[in-house]
Amino acid sequence: MDLDGERRARVALSFLAQPGDLVLGAALRIMTPAEVLAAVTGADEDGEALLAGQMPDAALARALPRWRARLTEVPSVARLAAWQQSGLRVVTPGDAEWPTQLDDLGDARPLLLWLRGTADLRLTCVRSVSMVGSRAATAYGNHVAIEMAAALADHGVAVISGGAFGIDASSHRGAMAADGETVAVLAGGLEFGYPHSHADLFEAIAARGVLASECPPARGPTRPGFLIRNRIIAALSRGTVVVEAALRSGALNSARHARELFRPVMAVPGPVTSDQSAGCHELIRDFGAMCVTCAADVCEHIGLPGEAAGCLRLGPSTPRDMLDPVTTAVLEEVPARGGRGPASIAVRAGVDLDTALRCLGMLTAAGFVERSDLGWRARRLQSTRQTGTRGERRRNTPQAYDQQGLGGP
Amino acid sequence: MDLDGERRARVALSFLAQPGDLVLGAALRIMTPAEVLAAVTGADEDGEALLAGQMPDAALARALPRWRARLTEVPSVARLAAWQQSGLRVVTPGDAEWPTQLDDLGDARPLLLWLRGTADLRLTCVRSVSMVGSRAATAYGNHVAIEMAAALADHGVAVISGGAFGIDASSHRGAMAADGETVAVLAGGLEFGYPHSHADLFEAIAARGVLASECPPARGPTRPGFLIRNRIIAALSRGTVVVEAALRSGALNSARHARELFRPVMAVPGPVTSDQSAGCHELIRDFGAMCVTCAADVCEHIGLPGEAAGCLRLGPSTPRDMLDPVTTAVLEEVPARGGRGPASIAVRAGVDLDTALRCLGMLTAAGFVERSDLGWRARRLQSTRQTGTRGERRRNTPQAYDQQGLGGP
Repeated sequence: MDLDGERRARVALSFLAQPGDLVLGAALRIMTPAEVLAAVTGADEDGEALLAGQMPDAALARALPRWRARLTEVPSVARLAAWQQSGLRVVTPGDAEWPTQLDDLGDARPLLLWLRGTADLRLTCVRSVSMVGSRAATAYGNHVAIEMAAALADHGVAVISGGAFGIDASSHRGAMAADGETVAVLAGGLEFGYPHSHADLFEAIAARGVLASECPPARGPTRPGFLIRNRIIAALSRGTVVVEAALRSGALNSARHARELFRPVMAVPGPVTSDQSAGCHELIRDFGAMCVTCAADVCEHIGLPGEAAGCLRLGPSTPRDMLDPVTTAVLEEVPARGGRGPASIAVRAGVDLDTALRCLGMLTAAGFVERSDLGWRARRLQSTRQTGTRGERRRNTPQAYDQQGLGGP
Repeated sequence: MDLDGERRARVALSFLAQPGDLVLGAALRIMTPAEVLAAVTGADEDGEALLAGQMPDAALARALPRWRARLTEVPSVARLAAWQQSGLRVVTPGDAEWPTQLDDLGDARPLLLWLRGTADLRLTCVRSVSMVGSRAATAYGNHVAIEMAAALADHGVAVISGGAFGIDASSHRGAMAADGETVAVLAGGLEFGYPHSHADLFEAIAARGVLASECPPARGPTRPGFLIRNRIIAALSRGTVVVEAALRSGALNSARHARELFRPVMAVPGPVTSDQSAGCHELIRDFGAMCVTCAADVCEHIGLPGEAAGCLRLGPSTPRDMLDPVTTAVLEEVPARGGRGPASIAVRAGVDLDTALRCLGMLTAAGFVERSDLGWRARRLQSTRQTGTRGERRRNTPQAYDQQGLGGP
């Protein structure tokens, strides 16, 4: 693995500090990774003094011994080379593949990311949505996750999620079924690959998307690690959708991260009789999350054109119940078959002819009635709700990337 | 039927004008019902001139002949007496039983209401909620309507709805199953009793609640009549809940009326895969309706104490995923069984003893851990969600009525 000094220092530090270590994040604001590493190893006493002089002493006093105690865990160059051989790569801030939106995390920005997979992480995330939810998902939740992810994929929106059972897995599978790209951010190392029974899923994701983790490859996940990982899922995408979640679900933690990052938080409603939707309803009711029912809603909220995402709703542009009483009375007297003259309609509706003609004109414009050889008749209304119409797919090409106005890599 | 001049004039006018006739409403702002009636019958030419002088001429020019043409429909005193004999009564503005909140409808205020049933309409509506929704309700919608109406009834909140199949009927049945009062506002006359197959339901409602209609008793409903009736359902109660509705459902019209009357509009979410919930989701998403999942939510929005309505949610007061990383790490090391000393917990969590003790104190306060003889151990969290707990019931007594600050009848 070809690592320059700063990158090698970052890799070393990633074995010393826990993910999301805010003390290390603060240290890296004032020193380079190599300088911090030198201070930790004791190779640079000036550096340690500099660090101690600028950091809150209590925090640093606790952190330095903790980091030092792990110096033995830093792997050899051979071990790093073996990981590279096995298909892993490291991206760090400043690399072309580094997703700069992670910088929004401030001191909690990951030191680096270990990646495996064919897709470019930065390009994939340009048009992306995080889909999170319960591990113990219901058939309903899994169905919605699959359909929504597939509809998003159809329009070139990548799906970002974790690697867990339930909503995470269904979101990846739905996106891949529609030939889409997905990013799985794991809480443990990529070599460890937790949960092991998702080995095939992870292979499939790597084959067309990316697996990502800030943890050293061989390290297993810890419970706090899942929550700390969630900040990356929230930060990578343009918005987070909670597909199905109970009241105390970890998915709500992802929603909180997204809100703190000023990314849109969305939730899919479900039956109020289902505990597995109670967390989503709470997000909508008390947290200000947006209620989304299809991929088009999601696209709207993340600033992509909604109609393009293939969910046409026939909303109340001029539904029957929005008509005024007189017009409704006129419409009532227009037959569904054959036809009726305007004078006859006026008499039956109890209005004068002028009024009847005015109403019929309005009703024609609104698509309720039409003229036939036999007079006026009602038009049949289309009331099908299209979901998941497969349109032309937009890939995350460098061109699309530039069009997003996010600057080149 | 003992009718003084003004009441008799109102009854007569109710046979001449259609429900919600705004021209008549405007006329009644400047003249008494008896004066308007005299102008219509031609008995009082001065009255007609007065009316014509004050009203927009075009509106009155169209309305007067329309009203006059129906003079033959005004029933005889014997017919009115027969209706009274059959258990009907008339309430008009100014009567003790008149629900003054209907005055919010302005010119569209009903002329009068025909009533049948044992309950007092005005008292029943003091603590009431309108529940509306699809006729073609799903099993889910009917279930939610029944459960919600029963939970509301348990706490003395009356249910107001129409008389249709689906959500209307389920709401009434749920309330009555819990011994509650309901009000059915019909779009046709009470003698006509549409739909006929609900004759038994209407009998049951009359036996413990009220049937109401602004239409002459023998008149059948018209399609515009349902929409015009909806304003009364919306105006009678403190708020309207749309339980289940498709995109073009008439229930959305009730929601619109409620919003125009500044009454809270609420909607129950459902599966996004169900067309019969699409209207509810649209209300939440685009119309600003409040997402409600149980009777407690409804009570909160209409200004009654929510917890009393028996739906305790265990929300994220201090859920595990809201803890900071250090506290989470400490909690992680507290065993579920037996116990562990604070020093051991500190070492395992990688924190110093002071930090561990501080975190343990916080976790104790939040109910996550407790001290046992063997050291610290995790407390088992209660995670049951109680819905529909039956509490003590508050009836709509005159006392309760006064406490609402709405003034005596």
